[in-house]
Amino acid sequence: MSVQSEFSVIQHYFEQLTSSRDDVLLDIGDDCALLKCPENQSLAVSIDTLVSGIHFFPDVDPHTLGHKSLAVGLSDLAAMGATPAWFTLALTLPEIEEPWLLAFSQGLAELAKQHNIQLVGGDTTRGPLAISIQVHGFVDPSKALRRSGAKPGDFIYVTGTLGDAGASLQLQLNQWYEDNLQAEDLLYLRERLEKPTPRVEVGQKLLGLASSAIDISDGLLADLGHIVKKSGVGARLELSKLPTSAALDKTSRKMVESLALESGDDYELCFTVPAHYFTEVQERLAGMCTQIGVITEESGLYFINENDERISLNKTKVGYDHFKE
Amino acid sequence: MSVQSEFSVIQHYFEQLTSSRDDVLLDIGDDCALLKCPENQSLAVSIDTLVSGIHFFPDVDPHTLGHKSLAVGLSDLAAMGATPAWFTLALTLPEIEEPWLLAFSQGLAELAKQHNIQLVGGDTTRGPLAISIQVHGFVDPSKALRRSGAKPGDFIYVTGTLGDAGASLQLQLNQWYEDNLQAEDLLYLRERLEKPTPRVEVGQKLLGLASSAIDISDGLLADLGHIVKKSGVGARLELSKLPTSAALDKTSRKMVESLALESGDDYELCFTVPAHYFTEVQERLAGMCTQIGVITEESGLYFINENDERISLNKTKVGYDHFKE
Repeated sequence: MSVQSEFSVIQHYFEQLTSSRDDVLLDIGDDCALLKCPENQSLAVSIDTLVSGIHFFPDVDPHTLGHKSLAVGLSDLAAMGATPAWFTLALTLPEIEEPWLLAFSQGLAELAKQHNIQLVGGDTTRGPLAISIQVHGFVDPSKALRRSGAKPGDFIYVTGTLGDAGASLQLQLNQWYEDNLQAEDLLYLRERLEKPTPRVEVGQKLLGLASSAIDISDGLLADLGHIVKKSGVGARLELSKLPTSAALDKTSRKMVESLALESGDDYELCFTVPAHYFTEVQERLAGMCTQIGVITEESGLYFINENDERISLNKTKVGYDHFKE
Repeated sequence: MSVQSEFSVIQHYFEQLTSSRDDVLLDIGDDCALLKCPENQSLAVSIDTLVSGIHFFPDVDPHTLGHKSLAVGLSDLAAMGATPAWFTLALTLPEIEEPWLLAFSQGLAELAKQHNIQLVGGDTTRGPLAISIQVHGFVDPSKALRRSGAKPGDFIYVTGTLGDAGASLQLQLNQWYEDNLQAEDLLYLRERLEKPTPRVEVGQKLLGLASSAIDISDGLLADLGHIVKKSGVGARLELSKLPTSAALDKTSRKMVESLALESGDDYELCFTVPAHYFTEVQERLAGMCTQIGVITEESGLYFINENDERISLNKTKVGYDHFKE
């Protein structure tokens, strides 16, 4: 990890803020980190980049940015049912602003501590603001949650509520204005966009139970679309069952549906479970997820209303186009 | 790994060009890659970012950029004595240019194939051109080459020749002009800058032999400086022994010394070996390295001429400042 000399000051922020795991034999400060993988587990890895102006507003609170940069990776581990272990950070900065770095590293460290995931290496370079984080976790490869295991008849679930992050993004971009939302609603939605909660615990509880899983980063339709495509199946969704927040429910029904189905960045999990595990899901994941539909033999995504009647949606949004690729 | 939909076309370039390793249980196309680590080996990881305009010229040949992006990571594995296994790629692109992508991915794939390292995941985003690659390799943790093991009396070696990459960079930036260099010399120096050879084989041969190692990315003085600092020792270098190329030797003696000591980007290895292994180094690494000095109890870096007389250098350059931090 060749760190430019003038940037070496940055190391201090990150060195001081990480927990110490026994399986880290050598961390920051050599050419490589040396790590000990547990036997009989596979290593799950995922890398994500957040670019200023694309994935976040340039003036975003650096504390929440630190949180979100790690949260998106933890969400990928959650979607495999993996236990977080280590991460690396490639940070590109236009200049060194110590208050920014302090807040960013604290946001990162708080979430890292919560999940016992340790920073083991990194590279800091000068350039347009961007953050790449690679997360590493462990999971029994025979139980790991993949996108490809959904079978006809499996129930489809999502965690948390959908559409909140997308709503906040649209409000901040002034693409939408909504009279009914109070200051506390706006704050709630913004927290959902800027400080998503990776569903690591749920992912681990799903091992041996779920037939497939994915995290919702591109929108429910796009991401459930990946599951049905990889699994060679389809899905029927009950629109009235989509879990949405009290804040979002204050807006128009049409807007709620569109956001819940097609907006990304919620970082909730979408997963499928064989029907005979219905009771077990209710017990193991009480209050953590909502059943929203069922996997079908027929390919594609279909929607039904409260009366079990098939209905069609306006299919103009990004999420849907993405799924149809 | 959430790939923006409009960028999913890019996947094709990389999916088709990677070798298939048995220890990759699941690669591109799920939330995480699943990888199998060998028992009794540690996992060596390193992440590096190359940013356009900082680490490479924006109009650089994309084929050589693909090579270099992976070479810098392989060089970190080499410096630990690790055997390459997998890499991930976080690619940020302002736009999709298919000829550029084809050349970049081919440059990457050729070097990857040579070292049997497989692409296992990635993220492609829109933004200012930047490439982050994380490499993963295996090494026996009891033998891994660290920066911290140099002892007084150990011989200091470097691989290849020094200063070539720095010379080419200065020539391209028009910071320097040299009458004596022919077209073939300029081409040679440019290849050294743009297509460095990671010394993976040498690194592996050093296991059980070298007491410390580092790759030369910031210049010999800066990087040997890391070794002596981490090891709590010093070093005495024989200036006349610094290995330099025939091309560089056509320039002034002073320029040669300055470049060989202080310019980075050569990605050669610098390592130390206990004196009693002198013959073994000559046998195992015949023609691959040059002895340039000896580790001293006295801290700091010192220079001697052919007559064993201590000499002082002009200490104005970046490499030296960096070491003195």
